[in-house]
Amino acid sequence: MNHPAHQPTESLAGWRAAPATPGTALADVDTPALLLDLDAMEHNMASVHARIRAAGISVRPHAKAHKSIDIARRQIAAGARGICCQKPSEAEVFVRAGILDILITNQVVGPQKCERVARLASQARIGVCVDHLEQVRQIGEAARANQVRVEVLIEVDIGHGRCGIASASDALTLARALQPYSGNLVFGGIHAFRGSAQHMRDPAERSQAVSKAVAQLKEIVAALEGEGLNCITVTGGGTGTYMLEAGSDLYTEVQPGSYVLMDTDYAANRNVGDTPMLRHALFGLCTVISVHPGHAVLDGGLKAFAVDQGLPRVLHAGWTVKSLSDEHTVILRGDEAAPLNVGDKVRMIPSHCDPTVNLHDWLIAVRGDLVEEIWPVSARGALF
Amino acid sequence: MNHPAHQPTESLAGWRAAPATPGTALADVDTPALLLDLDAMEHNMASVHARIRAAGISVRPHAKAHKSIDIARRQIAAGARGICCQKPSEAEVFVRAGILDILITNQVVGPQKCERVARLASQARIGVCVDHLEQVRQIGEAARANQVRVEVLIEVDIGHGRCGIASASDALTLARALQPYSGNLVFGGIHAFRGSAQHMRDPAERSQAVSKAVAQLKEIVAALEGEGLNCITVTGGGTGTYMLEAGSDLYTEVQPGSYVLMDTDYAANRNVGDTPMLRHALFGLCTVISVHPGHAVLDGGLKAFAVDQGLPRVLHAGWTVKSLSDEHTVILRGDEAAPLNVGDKVRMIPSHCDPTVNLHDWLIAVRGDLVEEIWPVSARGALF
Repeated sequence: MNHPAHQPTESLAGWRAAPATPGTALADVDTPALLLDLDAMEHNMASVHARIRAAGISVRPHAKAHKSIDIARRQIAAGARGICCQKPSEAEVFVRAGILDILITNQVVGPQKCERVARLASQARIGVCVDHLEQVRQIGEAARANQVRVEVLIEVDIGHGRCGIASASDALTLARALQPYSGNLVFGGIHAFRGSAQHMRDPAERSQAVSKAVAQLKEIVAALEGEGLNCITVTGGGTGTYMLEAGSDLYTEVQPGSYVLMDTDYAANRNVGDTPMLRHALFGLCTVISVHPGHAVLDGGLKAFAVDQGLPRVLHAGWTVKSLSDEHTVILRGDEAAPLNVGDKVRMIPSHCDPTVNLHDWLIAVRGDLVEEIWPVSARGALF
Repeated sequence: MNHPAHQPTESLAGWRAAPATPGTALADVDTPALLLDLDAMEHNMASVHARIRAAGISVRPHAKAHKSIDIARRQIAAGARGICCQKPSEAEVFVRAGILDILITNQVVGPQKCERVARLASQARIGVCVDHLEQVRQIGEAARANQVRVEVLIEVDIGHGRCGIASASDALTLARALQPYSGNLVFGGIHAFRGSAQHMRDPAERSQAVSKAVAQLKEIVAALEGEGLNCITVTGGGTGTYMLEAGSDLYTEVQPGSYVLMDTDYAANRNVGDTPMLRHALFGLCTVISVHPGHAVLDGGLKAFAVDQGLPRVLHAGWTVKSLSDEHTVILRGDEAAPLNVGDKVRMIPSHCDPTVNLHDWLIAVRGDLVEEIWPVSARGALF
């Protein structure tokens, strides 16, 4: 099989130079740039993987958070069994890079997307989620036409109120619907993820949410296994709850994504028991372009930082973020704060890492004050 | 001069296929796609340009809204004297496409960016804004080293509270600071834009804001011209106020950007007097991937729609948007609404066009129910 590493990405990025080269001093990186602190990322990856390994289950990190071939390869090297993606076009980027075990944690609908999944399944182990017979029909026809095997997980709604069936009878209906496609659709088990549970600040509340989900899922798994439909995989969980699913005696793998990068939203969670504390590894680096008595203006705005989970945080003593517009952030000077000058550089912590990374072409991987590597955001914009 | 049309963009987009080809029926476009309704865009462009031409001033549309070479070329063909950009790397995309009169409506700070501007100025007429002596020094040194001429506008803060000086004396200080760089920095006049005024819903309030700004600016212009510093250009205004600056007897050009596309934020403005009503030209097309008794789930979320100005609006009778997550939008079914099915496609109106366009690689230009052309978002991600 032929999967030239980085080839598609390099042709993507070739026309627009990265804001630094390896060896650049941090002070000389052009802005607004997205910095990845390698020490922090390595700490997060090692400690979370160790915690999950200790629980005896697998980690399949979600690549929608970082969209980076380089990070995904390190996750695999650090024991991940594969990765999650959210879209077929995202999975294509990683399969081309040689990552050959991918779960698409989403419903795949429409002829173009089903065809893409079927083609991927000729090169890699690909799973998808279903919660409706029409999805089974569409992916089943594409898998049959392409003579490939696609793993199918039934998505269960455990309180998120988005996708997923909720009852054992619906799960049985879906699982039985795979049978006409046997040989092309392989029943794999259950996918159950509750995004809203990830950000419950109180660990007791998160624990309660996961316990309730596990009870619901155990009933569904029992019903399926009662009909000989073995749930080899029960997968879900994220950065806020992975330690709870890991202790559930049900989940066989967890899907944390943000844990390698972190953001202000996850940092606002209170930690669960003995779980490793995560470090901020992702920072926006901005330049001060305009200064005034009570405020200064940075050269990155809404096109450099996602704001769906609130404003990013500026890391400069006494200064706070007031507002973002398309290409500017206005920061306010507190009473005790030292002034900033035109040309000064400041770091920001994104409020939500996933959509922030998706705004950038490059991750500038730094160690201390030096740029170590430049990593393309290989799956940026992979919407299809 | 050599500026191969679209060459850099095609190498950008080549590895990831567009979600449609010319001639595709709208029903067959892969999703989530960004549709551009050509009839609506042409109406918006023609009527706004006519309104500005009738006032006897110039239009220099802001390309940060659309980031599209194809739209910029049509704007020039429809009488625009040039375009505005917000970043040097954005301007590079348009200069390479042969658009050779660009105002960067921003402070340009840092050696990499000043060098980029100086190189652009060897091929095109390039203007930049200043509000601090340090910016003058940096762009002046780069222009001198490259033996080019850069036009410099003094940015005036007319109430936005972001960049810009506010007084005639500060304007004089900055204008005089250009003199050591004479031959390389050319004083052009004034840039004065108030983003917040664009979205005042009440036209009387907008009118008052512009009148107040014009009084402030007239004083500054008089002080500059009293020292022989002619303000050949007084530029600013946007989609919400361009008709007011056009009637100000001061502004020589206006910079609307969103007018060609429109969004729900601008649509919430009440119109000023005889100003042309603008039509929505930009739509997100999404597929229903999951259906439930009270809600359905679409296949585009925060990575397809910016939400800084609120949620997008779904165009399907009786359905409303509840929430967006990274790759999903949950829509709620009203009591009278017909159900949606897995595979149905629905249109969304973005709440804020600029950062939404920046999330996409392609604009799918449609007329009626047919795809007419596929336009790359050529300056997507041009952050530097």
